[in-house]
Amino acid sequence: MKKIVALAFTAASLIASSLVQDARNAGLQPIPESQSELLKLIDNPKNPITKAKVELGKKLYFDPRLSKSGLISCNTCHNLSKGGDDGMAAAIGHKWTANPHHLSSPTVYNAVFNDKQFWDGRSPDLEDQAQGPIQATPEMAATPEHVVAVVTSMPAYVKEFKKAYGKDIKITFKKVADTIGTFERTLVTPAPFDKFMNGCPSAMTKEQKEGLKTFIQVGCASCHNGVGIGGGMNTMNVTAKYKYMNIGDFKGDKNGMVKVPTLRNVTETAPYFHNGMIPTLRGAIKEMARIQLGTKLSDKQVKSIEAFLGALDGKKPYIRVPMLPASNAKTPRPVVK
Amino acid sequence: MKKIVALAFTAASLIASSLVQDARNAGLQPIPESQSELLKLIDNPKNPITKAKVELGKKLYFDPRLSKSGLISCNTCHNLSKGGDDGMAAAIGHKWTANPHHLSSPTVYNAVFNDKQFWDGRSPDLEDQAQGPIQATPEMAATPEHVVAVVTSMPAYVKEFKKAYGKDIKITFKKVADTIGTFERTLVTPAPFDKFMNGCPSAMTKEQKEGLKTFIQVGCASCHNGVGIGGGMNTMNVTAKYKYMNIGDFKGDKNGMVKVPTLRNVTETAPYFHNGMIPTLRGAIKEMARIQLGTKLSDKQVKSIEAFLGALDGKKPYIRVPMLPASNAKTPRPVVK
Repeated sequence: MKKIVALAFTAASLIASSLVQDARNAGLQPIPESQSELLKLIDNPKNPITKAKVELGKKLYFDPRLSKSGLISCNTCHNLSKGGDDGMAAAIGHKWTANPHHLSSPTVYNAVFNDKQFWDGRSPDLEDQAQGPIQATPEMAATPEHVVAVVTSMPAYVKEFKKAYGKDIKITFKKVADTIGTFERTLVTPAPFDKFMNGCPSAMTKEQKEGLKTFIQVGCASCHNGVGIGGGMNTMNVTAKYKYMNIGDFKGDKNGMVKVPTLRNVTETAPYFHNGMIPTLRGAIKEMARIQLGTKLSDKQVKSIEAFLGALDGKKPYIRVPMLPASNAKTPRPVVK
Repeated sequence: MKKIVALAFTAASLIASSLVQDARNAGLQPIPESQSELLKLIDNPKNPITKAKVELGKKLYFDPRLSKSGLISCNTCHNLSKGGDDGMAAAIGHKWTANPHHLSSPTVYNAVFNDKQFWDGRSPDLEDQAQGPIQATPEMAATPEHVVAVVTSMPAYVKEFKKAYGKDIKITFKKVADTIGTFERTLVTPAPFDKFMNGCPSAMTKEQKEGLKTFIQVGCASCHNGVGIGGGMNTMNVTAKYKYMNIGDFKGDKNGMVKVPTLRNVTETAPYFHNGMIPTLRGAIKEMARIQLGTKLSDKQVKSIEAFLGALDGKKPYIRVPMLPASNAKTPRPVVK
């Protein structure tokens, strides 16, 4: 009996390890379990991660006073409680303005694994990206001067900048964005898929393993690969004659390339596509196969892929609601108009 | 030497205990140190505090999907990172609408100590209060049906309601508001003032103790008293000929009574007054003395009172950013119009 169990276990392990190999061959990579390996992946040599920067960056990320109105923080559209986005089709910002290109906020979780940032990939990293929405009129609508004035008005913030960067630090808009970027680099969510890929065959269910096979066979991994299970740039089939693709004027970058979104935590980030026009995950799977792979999936295949995507639901970092320094007479007042 | 130190210590203790007595006589009360005494103060016999309710209530408090737009949560205007309010003169809600009466969001911290809720005291407790902003068109703009549909669409929420109230619980709008109220009851922030009042003479600085004396002598404690250092109902001098009192149409309740705001964490909750028209704490102290007490304070008195108010900055509860259940096909979609 013991022998049979051992044999069955070995067989299961072998099947699992062959699937791991298939997944690796298809370009899928896990978040490493080793903290030092992970740090190598997420760190920025030009702006290394430190505890002091992460703590300060977290505060700035949650501080609505960086916006012109004093009402919108990074966390408003990239809500850490809600899978790292806002659940909206088109993001809503300053003065209740919808994104003029009808673009949906991408999740901040695991965004560190993206090759580039923004849907059109116009930003090389999170530090650079963070400068965008703060200044965009339909988003936080602030100026670099406003941000610096807000932060430097509060001695507690100045003290934390000195702690993070040394006592001679000049607090600039770039440094504020850099610090937010550092915090965002830590927003990594290891999932059952990673545990499976890292050598634990039982971390995924039978359905999820079958789903991974389908995911690879159908060709999803041709775009959704790497550690981010997405995050590279690829051609967007904007010429496809599908009504929903005509919502918004987004056409990708100058070469028609668009960032492939991460599939990590995808069960939490409906609605889908750059313009948020697909409300359900099954719908998104079906339409992507049709538009990008020219394949009509059976219901069974769709369900199977959906099961695998559930194995990408990750464990979120433990984050305390930060306590922000109090405004004072020098702090710029909110302007809602 | 030891004797002199001991004598000086005793003298300081005696002076302190006489000030404690003066403060008690003036109606000022500390947050009790004993957890069971505190529980007696903050609990609601009709809706007793339990860990399961607090955990669920926290999620609901942070969930923007309770609003019509999916963008506004309780925490938007009563931001736990920012002293429990939004730092706005008039609150901004659905479709970027300013409060039509130009009313400022009061802090949720220590709101449990208020005799009544809302500026006009129209609500008896936090459970009842929580029903208001969710339904108000210029705030969260939702209906009870929307809230119930959102919450019951997510099995994880239903499970938590069962855990909190038993398996036969019917999830109603009232139950949702009750649960949010339970969470809010726990948002109590003990401060140096409380430690001082509870028998630790060194918990407040010399300036803060002097300030407490001034606070009592000038008459501030005639309205700002109780455990909340405010929270009762009192006459608002709306007939005063001060320009800023004419901003907004708020005149108190039918008897011209208005809720006295808590002074706990008041250094974090600028701008001041029901219509947020006073930007600085010193300005607020001066104007309140003039309007409500008919007294012109010296700069020294103003600074002294300000010093005492700093001793009301409390320790905020440790709150983890909650992870909310994911929306699904049954969850009502956000409506931003």
